[in-house]
Amino acid sequence: MIQISFPDGAVREYQDGISSMDIAKSISEGLARKVLAAKVNGQVWDASRAITADATLQLITWDDAEGKNTFWHSSAHLMAEAVEALYPGVKFWVGPALDRGFYYDMDLGGRQMTDEDLIQIEKKMNELAKQNNPYIRKGISKQDAIQYFEEKGDEYKLDLLSGLTDGDISFYTQGAFTDLCRGPHIPATGAIKAIKLTSISGAYWKGDEKNKMLTRVYGVTFPNKQELDAYVLMLEEAKKRDHRKLGKELSIYTMDDDIGQGLVLWMPNGTIIIEELEKLAKETEEAADYKRVVTPHIAKESLYITSGHLPYYQDSMYPPMELDGTKYYLKAMNCPHHHKIFSAELRSYKDLPLRLAEYGTCYRYEQSGELFGLMRVRCLHMNDAHIYCSKEDFAQEFRAVNEMYLKYFKIFGIDKYVMRLSLHDPAKLGKKYIDEPELWIETEEMVRKVLIESGTPFVEVQDEGAFYGPKIDVQIWSAIGREFTLATNQVDFAQGRRFKLEFTNKDNSPETPLIIHRAPLGTHERFIGFLLEHYAGKFPVWLAPLQVKILPISDKFMDYALAVKAKLRKAGVRVEIDDRSEKIGKKIRDTELMRVPYMLVIGEKEVAENQLSVRRQGKGDTGTQLVDAFVDLVVDEIENRKSAE
Amino acid sequence: MIQISFPDGAVREYQDGISSMDIAKSISEGLARKVLAAKVNGQVWDASRAITADATLQLITWDDAEGKNTFWHSSAHLMAEAVEALYPGVKFWVGPALDRGFYYDMDLGGRQMTDEDLIQIEKKMNELAKQNNPYIRKGISKQDAIQYFEEKGDEYKLDLLSGLTDGDISFYTQGAFTDLCRGPHIPATGAIKAIKLTSISGAYWKGDEKNKMLTRVYGVTFPNKQELDAYVLMLEEAKKRDHRKLGKELSIYTMDDDIGQGLVLWMPNGTIIIEELEKLAKETEEAADYKRVVTPHIAKESLYITSGHLPYYQDSMYPPMELDGTKYYLKAMNCPHHHKIFSAELRSYKDLPLRLAEYGTCYRYEQSGELFGLMRVRCLHMNDAHIYCSKEDFAQEFRAVNEMYLKYFKIFGIDKYVMRLSLHDPAKLGKKYIDEPELWIETEEMVRKVLIESGTPFVEVQDEGAFYGPKIDVQIWSAIGREFTLATNQVDFAQGRRFKLEFTNKDNSPETPLIIHRAPLGTHERFIGFLLEHYAGKFPVWLAPLQVKILPISDKFMDYALAVKAKLRKAGVRVEIDDRSEKIGKKIRDTELMRVPYMLVIGEKEVAENQLSVRRQGKGDTGTQLVDAFVDLVVDEIENRKSAE
Repeated sequence: MIQISFPDGAVREYQDGISSMDIAKSISEGLARKVLAAKVNGQVWDASRAITADATLQLITWDDAEGKNTFWHSSAHLMAEAVEALYPGVKFWVGPALDRGFYYDMDLGGRQMTDEDLIQIEKKMNELAKQNNPYIRKGISKQDAIQYFEEKGDEYKLDLLSGLTDGDISFYTQGAFTDLCRGPHIPATGAIKAIKLTSISGAYWKGDEKNKMLTRVYGVTFPNKQELDAYVLMLEEAKKRDHRKLGKELSIYTMDDDIGQGLVLWMPNGTIIIEELEKLAKETEEAADYKRVVTPHIAKESLYITSGHLPYYQDSMYPPMELDGTKYYLKAMNCPHHHKIFSAELRSYKDLPLRLAEYGTCYRYEQSGELFGLMRVRCLHMNDAHIYCSKEDFAQEFRAVNEMYLKYFKIFGIDKYVMRLSLHDPAKLGKKYIDEPELWIETEEMVRKVLIESGTPFVEVQDEGAFYGPKIDVQIWSAIGREFTLATNQVDFAQGRRFKLEFTNKDNSPETPLIIHRAPLGTHERFIGFLLEHYAGKFPVWLAPLQVKILPISDKFMDYALAVKAKLRKAGVRVEIDDRSEKIGKKIRDTELMRVPYMLVIGEKEVAENQLSVRRQGKGDTGTQLVDAFVDLVVDEIENRKSAE
Repeated sequence: MIQISFPDGAVREYQDGISSMDIAKSISEGLARKVLAAKVNGQVWDASRAITADATLQLITWDDAEGKNTFWHSSAHLMAEAVEALYPGVKFWVGPALDRGFYYDMDLGGRQMTDEDLIQIEKKMNELAKQNNPYIRKGISKQDAIQYFEEKGDEYKLDLLSGLTDGDISFYTQGAFTDLCRGPHIPATGAIKAIKLTSISGAYWKGDEKNKMLTRVYGVTFPNKQELDAYVLMLEEAKKRDHRKLGKELSIYTMDDDIGQGLVLWMPNGTIIIEELEKLAKETEEAADYKRVVTPHIAKESLYITSGHLPYYQDSMYPPMELDGTKYYLKAMNCPHHHKIFSAELRSYKDLPLRLAEYGTCYRYEQSGELFGLMRVRCLHMNDAHIYCSKEDFAQEFRAVNEMYLKYFKIFGIDKYVMRLSLHDPAKLGKKYIDEPELWIETEEMVRKVLIESGTPFVEVQDEGAFYGPKIDVQIWSAIGREFTLATNQVDFAQGRRFKLEFTNKDNSPETPLIIHRAPLGTHERFIGFLLEHYAGKFPVWLAPLQVKILPISDKFMDYALAVKAKLRKAGVRVEIDDRSEKIGKKIRDTELMRVPYMLVIGEKEVAENQLSVRRQGKGDTGTQLVDAFVDLVVDEIENRKSAE
């Protein structure tokens, strides 16, 4: 008999060799139907795999991130099975799960795949799914595996095999399809009830443009039709709200080949949004006793050796500028610069917590294939700050940062969010992570405690910490339910010591501060990309580049229009007049297209009565108002940063 | 007889071969006594040199920049004569005039010069000046010149001679001293009435650290004692107001070896000043219908080839970062980035003038020897904007920019200023300047016309234009009379065409805009350096990092102090409490040292009467005030950006 411990603390005895699925069945058949995989001693396994010793067990369903991941990975295998059935002789490279869905790279021997093919593959996949074939795992020796793929003539899997260790190799088979795979997989294909292949693209083998171009097919699957329908609807809405499309239509930003990929030029309209966001951040941070600093965008190599960015982060940095025997790097993060400001003066416990804030611009050399509109760029304007504090102050400071996040979420109408606590991997100490095993465990526990005590929803993720400490990534969902990873809040126990930062504590002894790195609004680039989708370009008045447009019905009313404009402008409102000789209908349509929150139509009647006909974006005519009343209304909406409802 | 034309338009006839000095004497002996040199056909000559053909003539006195320059160059010769008399065998390298004063580099054969030596040299110089020896020019063949210095064993002058062309070589002799020199010089040593040798430093021969270290002696001279006294007083005051000293004392900025030379880290106090200046600029520019943009700090090589920065400006740029076959450069100017924003959308004459503004950060690789505190740095935050306009709009736009300068001067109490119109040199077209001779003349004339019509004081300088057009540098004088070159206002007829910028004009045809580059507040670095000296660190309230300090006489009054603080903070005032257990006298002294404008002393009486004892920086106790009255007073001072008087 073996002892199985469950997440709720319960411990039960089972037959040695029992599978997670059988355990699930022993609890309830309903539960068993939902099980996709199981976490055994922290590792995700096939639900059918035998457990042969005492273990902790967590049953994994669609509701878990690992459940979706396994589901989509198994769906990639299902797609491969369908493709092989339709196009015999096809060879496969890799087929991973993505954040949302999956893809498989394949060599179709020169065949061009079309949208029509996707429909056929989808049909075949549905057919195969209905057969409810189990995913069967088989350990295999390296020699046998090589022989299998040599007989099949599959150079891609042979290439993959060359990198694997004998004894660690497994095949998975469902129906007529067998793949080299580490797993895990869902129990059987029948769980895949709704299938959508979304796109085809080319992808160089191993991402190297000197290699052959393979065909990459993307898809997404769900355990029921309703979720697929909702997802397709969301995709369609997301397409309409695509920040690249809106960014161009609303003159928010542009890019240019002579500047460089991933380097955003912010047009006047985008700059207004940037400045409003900075104003909000400055007000919020000033109220929380932050101090602002300004630092250069470059520094000498020695700074980044001290910080550990060289070598830990080198791959993401632009190459150095070498001059007079010195190497200068563009900064990829602001922290080392802020540490230098901390150490520029003697610090006492009375000066702490010291909170240094800067909208610092950082440069990261993302691979060109990964660049995407504003979401993945090479120049990042970060809402950055570093909080230097003692251990005693840590919990309070960390909690205050979390509360700042919640305050911002409220302003932007972000209802759904989750904090992702990213931890280190002990196996990678000294490589990916600073080699301080005890401090890792201590600070991870401190952060976990704050999150639990403050009732913040969070999940834990292994092996995704920063190199200097654990971090919290904040995931938020836009109004149409799309997920964005946005802000960050990190604890750093390492850099303080690396930079020899010290303050004199109450006992008059030198002490190294803990450092909190935080960026609640993330970067302008990603946050404005998110906001464009979230608001579909219909920004609340305080953020709208143009807040009010005055539409005189004819030139006769220009004097009045100018007087209204002057009044609004004096009150700090961004306002323009449409002075074209166009019909009022066209003026309204054009202004709607630019998503201007308020339109003021002015004709004979309005002038006579010192009134305005007020149209609200998306709501149409809202009646007439006295000029002063309208000014008060719009100023109130701006000053209180009200959401459009 | 020859015809001589004077600046006032008069033309007179003189004997062929007459000297400028003789012409001056023929006008008046008083004038002749003041003549230091003469500008003949635009070139500065010795006043004693014979004029042998019709010419334009401008007599040069101490009041002219060229007069001071000649005076100081002659003073360098006088110093060399004194040094040679005192230390026979000394060898000289070069001895130029500076913006203020002169230096001479010399090889003393291993002798260390001391401050005591300077006194002796000064004494000797005074003695030699009284002899009133004339500076006598003698043309000499290269062979004879080489023979002279070979006999003297002077390898430095021989090195200089090797670069000169026969027929173009002259010696100057005054008293017992003869030097290889192109001239010109003042008539005789007697004009030098007041002498001050200011410092000694080491200087590598030809600025190359592999070469021998020479001794450089700096000095300054004047035609009368009063001007020297005023100058010495100004130097002493400048020393007290040294922006590097104040910058450290007031925690304005710091530098760090690991960041790099010339790269400023702005501390919280400096950042407050930066943000106040940016706020002022944004308000001013918004009122003038500027639009703000934000652009990256790097761009690809191709951008700078188009702009002409490569090769015209390459020496001042950081070297490239090379990656994936592409070279990226740090931007040395914002203009090309702004041009890309101009060209990102179709532009019509209705969109013009388009004024794009950005506090852009630029990077220039100044030689390390030239770096100096905030005045000469490698990272520059520029109050930049580019105005794209048609030729018809040019005069109005250019005048509006000039008016903006004057508005700023008033706010900062800058009473003395002059605009320096820098023109091109026709001989350097295609090398230092874009090769467009006609456009140079046309735009220079446009700018001159605006300056004359608007009654702005200005001087013209040859061969100092930007490579793309004429520019105006603004020279201002600080409160203690020191001169700073600060802001810039440039016309650009070249880049519009290079970038193929176009707008559709009223005739529906494409037209290239003129571009005005302007930076009225210059860079944060230099302007804050200037302000530190100008105000001696005693900033007006609106600029002061800390505006009010509350000094409770004892802990008993802390509640009241906190209430006053809350009230001031709510009104937007930067306020702190000195809560140390120190005597009130010490609290006042420490706060005075930090140049905080207002100190509020709180004791028994103040609490009882809801009052404050108000001390004003530099004025001491100004009596008691009710709390609300004081809040109103300080808010008014801030909002109206009042100067401290």
